[in-house]
Amino acid sequence: MDVLIIGSIALDDVKTPAGEVKNALGGSAVYASLAAGHFAPAGIVGVIGEDFPEEHIRLLREHHIQMEGVEQIAGNTFHWSGCYEHDMGTAQTLETQLNVFAGFSPKIPRSFQETPFVFLANIDPELQARVLTQVHQPRFVLLDTMNHWIAHQRDKLIEDMAAVDMVVINQEEARQLAGTANLIHAVRWLRRQGARGIIIKKGEHGALVFWEDQIGIIPAFPLETVKDPTGAGDTFAGGFIGTLARLGEINYETIRTAAVMGTIMASFTVEDFSVQRLSHLSKDEIQNRGEELRAMARLSEKKVIL
Amino acid sequence: MDVLIIGSIALDDVKTPAGEVKNALGGSAVYASLAAGHFAPAGIVGVIGEDFPEEHIRLLREHHIQMEGVEQIAGNTFHWSGCYEHDMGTAQTLETQLNVFAGFSPKIPRSFQETPFVFLANIDPELQARVLTQVHQPRFVLLDTMNHWIAHQRDKLIEDMAAVDMVVINQEEARQLAGTANLIHAVRWLRRQGARGIIIKKGEHGALVFWEDQIGIIPAFPLETVKDPTGAGDTFAGGFIGTLARLGEINYETIRTAAVMGTIMASFTVEDFSVQRLSHLSKDEIQNRGEELRAMARLSEKKVIL
Repeated sequence: MDVLIIGSIALDDVKTPAGEVKNALGGSAVYASLAAGHFAPAGIVGVIGEDFPEEHIRLLREHHIQMEGVEQIAGNTFHWSGCYEHDMGTAQTLETQLNVFAGFSPKIPRSFQETPFVFLANIDPELQARVLTQVHQPRFVLLDTMNHWIAHQRDKLIEDMAAVDMVVINQEEARQLAGTANLIHAVRWLRRQGARGIIIKKGEHGALVFWEDQIGIIPAFPLETVKDPTGAGDTFAGGFIGTLARLGEINYETIRTAAVMGTIMASFTVEDFSVQRLSHLSKDEIQNRGEELRAMARLSEKKVIL
Repeated sequence: MDVLIIGSIALDDVKTPAGEVKNALGGSAVYASLAAGHFAPAGIVGVIGEDFPEEHIRLLREHHIQMEGVEQIAGNTFHWSGCYEHDMGTAQTLETQLNVFAGFSPKIPRSFQETPFVFLANIDPELQARVLTQVHQPRFVLLDTMNHWIAHQRDKLIEDMAAVDMVVINQEEARQLAGTANLIHAVRWLRRQGARGIIIKKGEHGALVFWEDQIGIIPAFPLETVKDPTGAGDTFAGGFIGTLARLGEINYETIRTAAVMGTIMASFTVEDFSVQRLSHLSKDEIQNRGEELRAMARLSEKKVIL
């Protein structure tokens, strides 16, 4: 197995101007693993309750996601309810039921402990740290977080950031964490905390990649249909680390390519509710969209001589 | 002369978290002509009052902006007061004094009537239409607008859009005009009105260029210092049409190159108040920043074989 993902496995109620779903498969580890799985063998560590439908487990297995790290325990699965307004911007959380997730402490199965690429999806920084003590010298660790942990677990989060290779964070959260409105200043502050690289997610505006002294601008794929933005960031991260694992080398070039594939995978996720689009994707669809994005983003090398 | 620009010439009071200026040189025609002038000979048509400082006229002349189309009449110059919040997003207008601009009707001097590239900056669509009757078969006309005209002169604006080659509009205004939250749907609607091409400005997130059946993603230059966003859109449009005039050909390749130079010029404008940065720019600074942006935006051609 090349990619280990630790995060939530959820049943989501989501309402957007395009419709709604109830008890739909969701969670950061689910989106990220389905995306990563297109590029490299992936497995997840998480927890589900007794109510978790068998068909979802089947779907993940059919996508070759390794499930030894998923505990099923008494109680209900983590449940999130949210809605999006007209512009499909930030989600408004209506309700979060932690359920079995409340007592979750990740236990990395022995067979997963040597996995070279690790994605610590958005969970309590305390739990993210516990994962790091259980994996043996991974080649690359990517860490995600959210506003809740920035507000309530700031010190632990900053400590974790020093122990990983790359942090992926959305632009508002980067500004919140660094305490500055200017994104470039925020990135500088984040980098001082110790991570070698930073990815700033900007939603429909793409992403910025900072690695060593390089900056990469990664455009988002312009979409005609956006039904449900849930899981876009997790999908991005999963596509990113899956691609990096597949390419096998870690340098600015592979990191940028990985970010392009992350943005492509995220563009599919938002085209439908839950993982409906992400779980019905052909290799051709992924590669064609990658080529389309490259064509749109290619800037002329023609110099304007002044 | 290659580029004719019709728009406002203003004295602005601007307050941002980085400071404030009073009675500073501003206006769409000023920003656009200073940007265009770096690439091609440019002239402006507009109106100023008796209070317009001689030093501003001198500054424009020193930048080789042709001024025969600028009338000076009794009364005060158009005056705008605005402020920006912490995130430097949308301007809040505190006061608009039309002054001499109230009775303005553009008169294109005979010497300007054959200008091949025309930029109709953000003014009343009625006046934009009057310009079109006074120029003789220009090769390329670019039209800008704003929310005020979308709300109050919608029909005339849509009529103008059918008579020009390209419309430059910001993303919120495109959505407002087309009556849809989805940007791609909005662009499709705008194109049905008749313009051959559309540029969607997204501020710090760059721009999207639509020309015939092509889509180009133009990134913005990531900036560490943003002091005053006033005039960024006008500067973009000026840099765009100036570059197009200099390149001399009108096709997707030159349009995309022109949009890159527009985004570069706009990145300088916002680094200081008024035209302070834009009016002190060397050719090397422009070209170096262009190269930097190209390097950041260059996506690997490496394919990820699935």
